[in-house]
Amino acid sequence: MVNSWATFGVDLHLEPTGPGLRRGLTDALREAVRTGRLAPGTRLPPSRSLAADLGIARNTVADAYADLVAEGWLTARQGSGTRVAAGVATGAASPHGEPSPSGAAFPPGAPAGSGVRPGSAAAPATTGPVSRPHEPDRPVHDLRPGMPDLASFPRTEWLKAARRALNSAPYHAFGYGDPRGRIELRTALAGYLARARGVRTDPERILVCGGISHGLKILGTVLAARGVPTVAVESYVLRWHRALLGAAGLSDTPLPFDELGTDPGELSDEGAVLLTPAHQFPMGVPLHRDRRAAVVEWARRTGGLVVEDDYDGEFRYDRQPVGALQGLDPEHVVYLGTASKSLAPGLRLAWMALPPGLAGEAVEAKGGIDTCGVLDQLTLAEFIASGAYDRHIRAARLRYRRRRDALVAELARRAPSVRATGIAAGLHVVLRLPSGTEQATLRAAAWHGLAVDGLHRHRHPDATAEPCDALVVGYGTPPDHAWSAALDALCAALPE
Amino acid sequence: MVNSWATFGVDLHLEPTGPGLRRGLTDALREAVRTGRLAPGTRLPPSRSLAADLGIARNTVADAYADLVAEGWLTARQGSGTRVAAGVATGAASPHGEPSPSGAAFPPGAPAGSGVRPGSAAAPATTGPVSRPHEPDRPVHDLRPGMPDLASFPRTEWLKAARRALNSAPYHAFGYGDPRGRIELRTALAGYLARARGVRTDPERILVCGGISHGLKILGTVLAARGVPTVAVESYVLRWHRALLGAAGLSDTPLPFDELGTDPGELSDEGAVLLTPAHQFPMGVPLHRDRRAAVVEWARRTGGLVVEDDYDGEFRYDRQPVGALQGLDPEHVVYLGTASKSLAPGLRLAWMALPPGLAGEAVEAKGGIDTCGVLDQLTLAEFIASGAYDRHIRAARLRYRRRRDALVAELARRAPSVRATGIAAGLHVVLRLPSGTEQATLRAAAWHGLAVDGLHRHRHPDATAEPCDALVVGYGTPPDHAWSAALDALCAALPE
Repeated sequence: MVNSWATFGVDLHLEPTGPGLRRGLTDALREAVRTGRLAPGTRLPPSRSLAADLGIARNTVADAYADLVAEGWLTARQGSGTRVAAGVATGAASPHGEPSPSGAAFPPGAPAGSGVRPGSAAAPATTGPVSRPHEPDRPVHDLRPGMPDLASFPRTEWLKAARRALNSAPYHAFGYGDPRGRIELRTALAGYLARARGVRTDPERILVCGGISHGLKILGTVLAARGVPTVAVESYVLRWHRALLGAAGLSDTPLPFDELGTDPGELSDEGAVLLTPAHQFPMGVPLHRDRRAAVVEWARRTGGLVVEDDYDGEFRYDRQPVGALQGLDPEHVVYLGTASKSLAPGLRLAWMALPPGLAGEAVEAKGGIDTCGVLDQLTLAEFIASGAYDRHIRAARLRYRRRRDALVAELARRAPSVRATGIAAGLHVVLRLPSGTEQATLRAAAWHGLAVDGLHRHRHPDATAEPCDALVVGYGTPPDHAWSAALDALCAALPE
Repeated sequence: MVNSWATFGVDLHLEPTGPGLRRGLTDALREAVRTGRLAPGTRLPPSRSLAADLGIARNTVADAYADLVAEGWLTARQGSGTRVAAGVATGAASPHGEPSPSGAAFPPGAPAGSGVRPGSAAAPATTGPVSRPHEPDRPVHDLRPGMPDLASFPRTEWLKAARRALNSAPYHAFGYGDPRGRIELRTALAGYLARARGVRTDPERILVCGGISHGLKILGTVLAARGVPTVAVESYVLRWHRALLGAAGLSDTPLPFDELGTDPGELSDEGAVLLTPAHQFPMGVPLHRDRRAAVVEWARRTGGLVVEDDYDGEFRYDRQPVGALQGLDPEHVVYLGTASKSLAPGLRLAWMALPPGLAGEAVEAKGGIDTCGVLDQLTLAEFIASGAYDRHIRAARLRYRRRRDALVAELARRAPSVRATGIAAGLHVVLRLPSGTEQATLRAAAWHGLAVDGLHRHRHPDATAEPCDALVVGYGTPPDHAWSAALDALCAALPE
């Protein structure tokens, strides 16, 4: 169902019923405020009349208003009605300038789900000719983190966008293009990232790349060329990302980690720090507001570079989104985003918003040419511009939230000794296990045909944080029809 | 018009009239013999009855038969009729095992046409933020080599293939894939390359990459890791390719060049040699059969690697195709092909057929992951498998041949002091100028709004061959409607 609330220039794309309806309305209003289409001070229609206008229940509108008042986007005063709050800047991620210390969960920019991991893929490469089967072996249930539900890739909508994009593209778009990527996509991304993630950038400073891995490779080359010897990383971090930094000639050192997230207090002359601020991978906590400020302060003081891996920033469920750290200081933070979680890794499309001083070096490190196919770039640009991307994200968010809710409820019933953390966002949770049971649980999982990661896999070897036993469970990967069985197998594998 | 010659399992896609009719029939018969659908010894129908069957003139069939007899695919004996020759192996590039010493012209795997060249793109990168206009400035007439006619990109057919590919793909195809590329594409390529270029490979040894540049980057990494210090290149060579080798830490040294093509006689312990055997870039001569044999012999004797850049092998006009050098020795030759000339550079799709011992290292050098978008890979696989690729190539070949003929005729009339060479194939010609006039002609060309390369641009700085004055003119780039005006401007700029 699509309603157009034309009076305010707000396009509402609403689920017909259920929690998605309220969420859709809340999101649309938040976006309208954030983008300035609803200016500060604007008085919103009474909930009763908006409800009648949209053909929905008054309570739904009242709840949406209440959510947005709680988040600070709207104000409600007796006798004055509901108004857009003063001081909510266009493009801001949050009216408070900082996110609440809740979470947004995220999967990383590295292969995990469908069987081929960078590590395992490289392994046979060193031992001779590659002779793996056509499709990598897959476990019965794949709950490793880092993959969205590939079965829900919007094939029909994507093809429609491809048709429009291909038919309207000038012929020279099919040539060797701007090394930064197609201008249509960079323009669409600049708008989307400002609106949805609070990123402050413009198309001239966006660099399209072939995945977060590619982005890190480019940045590693730039940092190495600048003479940066070491990059600070988090205590929990993807091995693959460390390997990419290593391949560029950079060493890495872990920052301390506690319940407020990664602690940047020990940053000194590293030159760069790689963080997952919205939803620490894999722990799931967002970086605390004080620490966000501290990281930016460090970068300003030392001239260091902050690399923000926002791999799953689109997926947050319980609170308002954690805006991008980049929005605090676009001069010192590189923002990295990707279509790998929001659409599919197979697109091989990701993007960086670069500080002005870095754009030229990054283009050079990319090789001076556009390495990404223009047809997918043009299609994604059309997909975003037409609103199909937002609709897809909204539907995916609802799907994953339901899965998460089912997971948490089922765990409480069947595995009460297991505590689910990092659940506020993203496509994975961390299941804390009784001490000393991680290896046994992984064996039990394998016995149940389940692929899942142990937390130790993602712990930096030099991390000082107390090791804890846990599973990292990606609930995005199974197709809908297989989700219940996967959840059942997971519960069967967990200690009771 | 599509005729099906079902008796022999030969699908004929014929132009209704003109030279394309004879060519289409010849090509279809040649493919049928090459692929084994017409077995050695098979007697072909009399030209009169085939002509009646197809509804075309008897002479056309007789001419096609005569062409194929001359090429060695068929035999004709008094009283025995026309038969498929004995000993023409399935998948062979040519019944003689070696190409005739004629040409097939080719454009390189590097950007040239639409304005952004790697060199110029990298230039602003070193001087600060990138701030070029959205679309690079384009000259009125772009006749630089290396670009196909982008306006003839088969949008409708491509979209049809995309729809079929996307709708039939298993959902896990959208995940992180095999680092070698999608199996559907590698399978389609292995068949196509055997049939059209005489390449001997299988899908397990094909590596999909994002352009010939990407392939050279991968090979450069492999060679450097093997300790190869120097790569032999041709006296005429793309700067961009030399830069890619240099970026991998390899030096390069030029081989001598004469009217028989590049002379491999001086090869010693270089470890690798990069060649354009089918159609030397930019000179246009094919590598002489004796020299092809000598290169392979060198590789066998020293364990060296031959890198064959077959950038435009699909486009040959006057004689039978020059088969891939790789077919002579798949253990020592890497074959590099690309969709950049046959379809469009914007696809960023190319492929390597690797010796068995090299596949693993190349996968590792690629980064252990698939870096190319799967949607375009699946679409190209479907495009090839459905026959749309062959049809497109055939139509493009006809278009470019007509342009070449017009170019040669117009030059003879308006610029008789200019000699066109390297015209048997490819998308560019070399126009030999009176000595000492290259710079003045380039200035005149610019004055006429024409972008064109001087031959000196592509001469290796250490080459020993006598420098000669010439233009390298890419006639593929202009869209059809602009071709006449471009040709007119070119003739106006040339010395009379």
